[in-house]
Amino acid sequence: MPKVRVHNVTISLDGFMAGVNQRPDAPFGDGVGWGDELHGWFISAMEDAAAGRTGTDVDYFVRGDQNIGATIMGRNMFGPQRGPWQDDSWKGWWGENPPYHHDVFVHTHHVRPTLEMAGGTAFHFTDEPPEAVLRRAFDAAGGKDVRIGGGAAVIQQYLRAGLIDEMHLVIAPMLIGRGERLFDNLEDVTEGYRVSEMVGSPEVTHAVLVRHPR
Amino acid sequence: MPKVRVHNVTISLDGFMAGVNQRPDAPFGDGVGWGDELHGWFISAMEDAAAGRTGTDVDYFVRGDQNIGATIMGRNMFGPQRGPWQDDSWKGWWGENPPYHHDVFVHTHHVRPTLEMAGGTAFHFTDEPPEAVLRRAFDAAGGKDVRIGGGAAVIQQYLRAGLIDEMHLVIAPMLIGRGERLFDNLEDVTEGYRVSEMVGSPEVTHAVLVRHPR
Repeated sequence: MPKVRVHNVTISLDGFMAGVNQRPDAPFGDGVGWGDELHGWFISAMEDAAAGRTGTDVDYFVRGDQNIGATIMGRNMFGPQRGPWQDDSWKGWWGENPPYHHDVFVHTHHVRPTLEMAGGTAFHFTDEPPEAVLRRAFDAAGGKDVRIGGGAAVIQQYLRAGLIDEMHLVIAPMLIGRGERLFDNLEDVTEGYRVSEMVGSPEVTHAVLVRHPR
Repeated sequence: MPKVRVHNVTISLDGFMAGVNQRPDAPFGDGVGWGDELHGWFISAMEDAAAGRTGTDVDYFVRGDQNIGATIMGRNMFGPQRGPWQDDSWKGWWGENPPYHHDVFVHTHHVRPTLEMAGGTAFHFTDEPPEAVLRRAFDAAGGKDVRIGGGAAVIQQYLRAGLIDEMHLVIAPMLIGRGERLFDNLEDVTEGYRVSEMVGSPEVTHAVLVRHPR
């Protein structure tokens, strides 16, 4: 059975995925720069993966792409705009050839036409509920797994709906203080999961949550 | 200058020090047993320390006792009772010879006479504010550091008052879902700290927070 997986979701030591006031020039909010301790491990892992190096961080990073046939994300992960689109010029954070190379479903209240990008990535915009989007994603994945990208709100929504099989988290040595906390409003949900791996690297700690068998 | 230190404070992967409904037969609340993944590392570290073994977990555990001259804790760490004491028979969780061997100050709205125990431990009960209790603790410590024991409420209170110099946290591979979260209502406080160490062992992840120089 294909799975629904979450990978490389980085939280601060105090549990936040991002700070407050996320905006175009500060996509992770106040006090959280892209190159700092929160995502520093991720940037290094990308470079290591490109260079063919191995190691704890890069191995977990690479796992996140293995056997993934489609991705689902929230609109805030696709772009910093809020409310109706002013025009269709924004094509995501990732340039003309995004690193997905498969169908990506973007949850948004403001749908727009599918964006076909170079390299096989297509961004589909949908206001359907998680179950319906997941069906479309499984169809698009052709037997491979589906990845839930983020941010926190989308991951929480899929967790609450009982749809996530496996979640890889990364704890980074940083304090954020306020913002988007991953483990909020998940009281009953976490009962359904156990921690199957917890491994420290020199930079961060990796943890994997898996759903209890039903 | 003697310091105010916190050690061996264990939180679940989702950030809780204890679950809900803490009571005599479940001191860490619903779903959290003393021997399970939350404190399993601590029990092993105590045994390793007693046997003279070393290792990441036992080394951090042992650090928590080094150069400590007095301890401050909340009433819930001293005992499971709430409200006025029914009598003076409860003498803490630790038996006749508690593992402190110095003065211990217990924050409580319900003061009672000092309890002199075997081995040099004395429990003092006080309804004074943190600053006043800390002055008494430093006097008692005779030049050594003062340790804040817990639970979450007392640690948060001392953090908010800007009184803690150093805090050692342990992240355990368990999910609790609801209960006492360490990083709650500390929005502005965490700005004053940075993560100076983060080290994984096979069991848990250790992190140390230190205050920015003023």
